Amino acid sequence: MRGSFKILLVFIIGTCVCKMNVARAQLKPLERVRPMSWWVDMADSSLQLLVHGKDIAARTVNFSYPGVHLIKVHQVENPNYLFIDLIIDKGTRPGKFDLRFTKKGAKDLVYAYELAEPSSDPGRNQGVTNKDLIYLVMPDRFSNADPSNDKVAGMKDQSLNRDSMYERHGGDIQGLMNHLDYIKDLGATAVWATPMIENDMSSASYHGYAATDIYKIDPRFGTNELYKAYVEKAHSMGLKVIKDVVHNHIGSEGWIMQDLPMKDWVHQWPSYTNSSYRDQPLMDVHRSETDKKVMLDGWFVPTMPDLNQNNPFVDKYLTQNHIWWIEYAGIDGLRLDTYPYNDPEFMADWAKAVLRQFPHLSIFGETLVTTPAEQAFFTGGNTVNRGLDTHLPGVTDAALKDAIYGFLNDKEGWVDGSNKLYAVLSLDFLYKHPEQNEVFLDNHDMSRFYSMVGEDFNKFQQGMGILLTMRGVPQIYYGTEILMKNFSNPDGLVREDFPGGWNKDTTDKFHAAGRTVMENKAFNFVRTLAQFRKTSHALQTGKLMQYVPEDKIYVYFRYMAAESVMVIINKNDSEKKLTTDRYKESVAGYHSAINVLTGQELSDIKEITLPANGITILQLKK
Amino acid sequence: MRGSFKILLVFIIGTCVCKMNVARAQLKPLERVRPMSWWVDMADSSLQLLVHGKDIAARTVNFSYPGVHLIKVHQVENPNYLFIDLIIDKGTRPGKFDLRFTKKGAKDLVYAYELAEPSSDPGRNQGVTNKDLIYLVMPDRFSNADPSNDKVAGMKDQSLNRDSMYERHGGDIQGLMNHLDYIKDLGATAVWATPMIENDMSSASYHGYAATDIYKIDPRFGTNELYKAYVEKAHSMGLKVIKDVVHNHIGSEGWIMQDLPMKDWVHQWPSYTNSSYRDQPLMDVHRSETDKKVMLDGWFVPTMPDLNQNNPFVDKYLTQNHIWWIEYAGIDGLRLDTYPYNDPEFMADWAKAVLRQFPHLSIFGETLVTTPAEQAFFTGGNTVNRGLDTHLPGVTDAALKDAIYGFLNDKEGWVDGSNKLYAVLSLDFLYKHPEQNEVFLDNHDMSRFYSMVGEDFNKFQQGMGILLTMRGVPQIYYGTEILMKNFSNPDGLVREDFPGGWNKDTTDKFHAAGRTVMENKAFNFVRTLAQFRKTSHALQTGKLMQYVPEDKIYVYFRYMAAESVMVIINKNDSEKKLTTDRYKESVAGYHSAINVLTGQELSDIKEITLPANGITILQLKK
Repeated sequence: MRGSFKILLVFIIGTCVCKMNVARAQLKPLERVRPMSWWVDMADSSLQLLVHGKDIAARTVNFSYPGVHLIKVHQVENPNYLFIDLIIDKGTRPGKFDLRFTKKGAKDLVYAYELAEPSSDPGRNQGVTNKDLIYLVMPDRFSNADPSNDKVAGMKDQSLNRDSMYERHGGDIQGLMNHLDYIKDLGATAVWATPMIENDMSSASYHGYAATDIYKIDPRFGTNELYKAYVEKAHSMGLKVIKDVVHNHIGSEGWIMQDLPMKDWVHQWPSYTNSSYRDQPLMDVHRSETDKKVMLDGWFVPTMPDLNQNNPFVDKYLTQNHIWWIEYAGIDGLRLDTYPYNDPEFMADWAKAVLRQFPHLSIFGETLVTTPAEQAFFTGGNTVNRGLDTHLPGVTDAALKDAIYGFLNDKEGWVDGSNKLYAVLSLDFLYKHPEQNEVFLDNHDMSRFYSMVGEDFNKFQQGMGILLTMRGVPQIYYGTEILMKNFSNPDGLVREDFPGGWNKDTTDKFHAAGRTVMENKAFNFVRTLAQFRKTSHALQTGKLMQYVPEDKIYVYFRYMAAESVMVIINKNDSEKKLTTDRYKESVAGYHSAINVLTGQELSDIKEITLPANGITILQLKK
Repeated sequence: MRGSFKILLVFIIGTCVCKMNVARAQLKPLERVRPMSWWVDMADSSLQLLVHGKDIAARTVNFSYPGVHLIKVHQVENPNYLFIDLIIDKGTRPGKFDLRFTKKGAKDLVYAYELAEPSSDPGRNQGVTNKDLIYLVMPDRFSNADPSNDKVAGMKDQSLNRDSMYERHGGDIQGLMNHLDYIKDLGATAVWATPMIENDMSSASYHGYAATDIYKIDPRFGTNELYKAYVEKAHSMGLKVIKDVVHNHIGSEGWIMQDLPMKDWVHQWPSYTNSSYRDQPLMDVHRSETDKKVMLDGWFVPTMPDLNQNNPFVDKYLTQNHIWWIEYAGIDGLRLDTYPYNDPEFMADWAKAVLRQFPHLSIFGETLVTTPAEQAFFTGGNTVNRGLDTHLPGVTDAALKDAIYGFLNDKEGWVDGSNKLYAVLSLDFLYKHPEQNEVFLDNHDMSRFYSMVGEDFNKFQQGMGILLTMRGVPQIYYGTEILMKNFSNPDGLVREDFPGGWNKDTTDKFHAAGRTVMENKAFNFVRTLAQFRKTSHALQTGKLMQYVPEDKIYVYFRYMAAESVMVIINKNDSEKKLTTDRYKESVAGYHSAINVLTGQELSDIKEITLPANGITILQLKK
C-alpha cells in the first residue's frame, strides 16, 4: 500500500474508461458450465457447478454416473443460472457423463462432463520455499513470440503500442516459455507471472488483474493448453510455477458482470464506494465497523467490482476455480493479490480447502502494509491475530523491503540505516514462520530497485546480496538483474519491455553480448549468488543469526549444524578490518572461508578485510 | 531509548567523574540489617535478612520469637556479610525480638528486629489506573521548602547551584508536599517523583538514579519518615503516589559497592562493558546470545554498576526492598526505570511477588523503544512474548508519544501525520491491556512538549487534548502545563526549576498572578480538561473507537453504554464543517452536546463547526 500501490491505481484509474454498456452477445440456451471438468478422488467430495444459459432455470437437471450424486439444484435471482450441488464418492471411476437439462417441449441441452484422474506426478504442486528464488514477469512485457495473437478479433482492447505503458505490447506465454532458459541460467528456480487470465477490458487490459473469465487464459497470451504446456516445460527444466490469483475483484466487463447470477454476487453500495485501502480496521480493537466494511467491501477501483465472498456461491466459485487451475496445470504456488481486501473468514476457509487438497502448495499473500505487526496479523498460526487463524503460509514482506531500503539509503541512526534492517528483522518473533515470507526489492507496482538506490552499483550489490542470503523466499522482478530502472510515478515505466523479447528489438539483453559491461556485471553478480544459493543448504534452509550493527558494519549468518555462510556489509566509505572475536558464537569451529563473490580463499578468518561500501559473503570452512 | 535517553546519558556521563576510591569509613561490627524491619502475615512467609558488619560471618545467629523460624544462615565470599533465611508463620503476633550475633570471647551484637502489623488502611496501595492523571516531578527541581538540607555534611556532592543543570538545586520532599494543592487543583490525581533514595555520589547526585542506599531517603530530600508523611498527606488530599524504582543498577559509590557481599553481586566483565541499550536481542529469534548478554549485563554507565539479578541474594534484596517501601509508606504504584535492561525472568518473578502482596498496585515499565510490537513484548499477558509472561501491567507508551508528535508535526501522508497516530493505535491488538499503558508527551529524559511543537499553542492544545482523552494513564511532566520549554540536548534545561518553588524566586507560577496570559491559558486548558476527566466515566474507563482520518480531520470517541465523549482534531488551517453521518455507530442516540473546552451547548450534532487547527471535545447528550 502507500506509495507503492499508487502506480497500480494510476495504471487503472488513469486509463480505464468505465464502459459498462458494452454490447451484450446473445446468450445461448447453454452458454457454459463451470468448472468445465473436475476430478475424482478429490479431498473434498462435494462439487458445485455453475450453469449459465438463457432461461436455464426453467430446466430440470438429469444425469447418471456411478458414484456421482445430485444433492441440490439451486435456482437463484437470475433465471439464466443454475447452481448444482454434487457429491462424488471416493473411488468413483474417471470418465465422462452427459449432464442433461430438460424442459417439456424443448430440445434437451447436453454438456459432456468429464471427471478425470488427478495427476499423481510428484513433480507438480511442489511448493515454492526458501530454497527457491522467484523470478517475476509481466507476460505482456517480457517477450512476444507469437505476433499472431497480439490483437484478437472481437476483444475490446485492440491497442498494440509498445510506447505506451497503458496499452498492450504483445508479450505472451510462448515468449515466456522461450526464455525459461534465461531465467534458469540466472539461477532462479520459480517463475511468478502476473495474471494471464482473460481480461477482456476496454483498456489497460494487459495487466491481468481485471479478470473477465477466470477459467480462461487470455487469448492474447495463449490458451489454457499452452499455459499447461508452459508449466510442464518449466517443470521439465527444474523450474516451479507460481500463479497470481485475485480473490477480491474481477473486471467490470466480463460475462458474469453483464449477467449477474444475483445482485449480491458483488458488493453493492447506494452510491459508488471505493475501498479505503486501509488494513487497520481489520486488526484495530478500536475500529469502527463502518471503516472495516469500507475497506473490505468498497471497490478497489470503479472498473473492478468487489466480489461478495460471503455469498456461498461466490465462495465455491472462487475456491473451485483455484483448485481447478492447480490440478489442471500442476501449479506449485499461488500469489494472492490484494490479500487484506478480502473477507478474512472466507480467506481462512479458502486456504484450508486449498491446502487440504495440495498440502505442499505455497501461498504468499500480498500485504503491502508498513509494519511487521500488521503483516504478521495476516499470517497463519501467528499469536497476534487472536480471533482467527488465517492459514496463510506467508506474505510479501513489504516491511522488510522498506527496511532494506532504509539500510541502503538512510543515514545511520538509532533505528535508521543498518539499524533499521536489524530492528525490523528482530520483530520476526511476531510470525510463526518468517522464513515463509517472500522477500523482495521491487515488483510491478513499485519503483525499480536500481533507481531507488540512485543507480549506485555498490548499493545494488548490497541489496541483491541481502536479498539472496536473507531468510525467506527471495523474488526478483524481471530486468532488475540487468539494471532496468525507472520510478513507478508518474509514467509507469517500471513495466517496460525486457529488451530482446521482441523480434524487432535492436538489443537483446537475454544474452551477454547484448548487455553493457555494467549490465553484465550486475547479471553476473546475481547469477553467481543465485547459483551458489542452489548449492548452499545454509542459505536454503539454515537459521539466521544477526548481530547488532556496529561502526556501520552489519553482520549476519545463515547456518546449520555443519555449514555456515557469513554475510558482512560495510557501509563505510573506506576499507575496514573486521576482527571476528565478537561473532564467536557463529564462527567457532570455522577457520577459513571461501569468498562466494570473488572465489578467493581466506586461510584465516580472525580478521577480515572489508571493501568500502561492499558486501562480503563467505562460506565458512572447518 | 534513541534520542530521548541520550539526555540522561549526557547528564550522567557528562558530569560524573568515576571516583571509586572514596575513603571508606571504618566498618562497625554490626553496621546494618536489611530490611530494617518487616511485617507479620505477609503473602510470602519467607524473609531473608542481609546483615553487614566487620567479620560478622564469624558469629552465630540466635533469636527466639514465637512463629519465627531460622531456616538457614548463609556465609558468602565476604566475611562481612551474613544472609539469614527466616520463615514467619501465619498468625505470628507483631512485636520485637533481639537478633543476637554471638562469638566466643566477644561481646554479643544485638539488633532489635521489629515485625509490625501490616496496615489495613484501604486508602493505601490503591493502584494508578486510567482513571488517573499522573504529575511527574523531579524533587530537586520542583520546590525547596527546607534550605537546611540543601547541603548535608559528610555527603560527597556539596554542590548547590541552580544555574547548573548538573548540580543540586535544593528541592525537597517538603517542597513537594507544600505544592500538592497546586497539583490537585490542576486536576492531577497521582504524583510520580523521580527517585528520592540516597544518591551519595560525587556528582550529578540530584537525579536519583544512582542509589547508594536503597533503604534510605536522601537526606537532601528528607527522611524516610518525611517520605511516609508525604504519601499520607497526598492520600489525605485524594492524590495517589508513584515511586520510581531502579532494578537494573545502583550508584558506584554506595556502601554495598565499597564492600561487595560477593564479586557477582554486580555483573563483572574482563574490561568495562557498557550496555548496548538495544532491546532487540531480548526478543529477536535471530539474536546472538552475546548481544543479549551485553544488553542485559553491560553497565548502563560507568558510575552505575549493573546488578546481577540472577544472584539469588540480589533477587531477594531487591524484591524485599520494594515490598518494604510499598508497605512502609503506602505507595500506590511503581514506575520501573530502564525496564528492558533487567533480567526478564527475574522481573517476571519480581512482579508476581509484588502483585501477590499488593494486588491493586499499578506498575509501569520504562520501555523507551520505538514500536508497539517491542513495547507489547514487555507487557504481561500479551500473545507475542511466547516464552515468558512478564506480569508487567503496563509500559510507558513511547510509541504512542512518537505517534502523537507525528500527528502534530509531520505532513499528512499515508502513514504520517494524523494517519500515524491512527495507525499506531490500531496496533493495540498486540497488548492485552493497552489501557494500562502510561501515555505521555514528555518527561525528564526528553525535550519539553511545547518546544517539540515549535511553541505552537494550537498544537499544545491538540496534544494536551489527546493526552487527556486517550486510552491509558496520562502523565504530565511538571511545568509543561505552564509552557515550560527547552530541548534535552545539549544543555539539559528540561530539568529547570519550577518558578516559584524557591523562596527567592521573583516569579511564582504556582499561582495565576505569577503566570503570563499564555501560561494561564495553557494552565486553564489543562485544568479544564483534567477536572472534566475526573467527572467523566467515558474518559476514565470507557472504550476507544477511532475512525480512519479523512481530510486532515481525526475523530475518536471514548464511550460506554450511557456516556460518550467525541474528540475531533482539525489539522486544516481553516474552519471546517463536519457532518457526523459517517460516525453513526458512535453518535446514534445522541442529539446534542456540551463543548467541554468552551462550555458551549450544541443543540444539534448533525453538523459540527471545527475551528482551524483546533481540537473539539464534546460530551454527547441523549
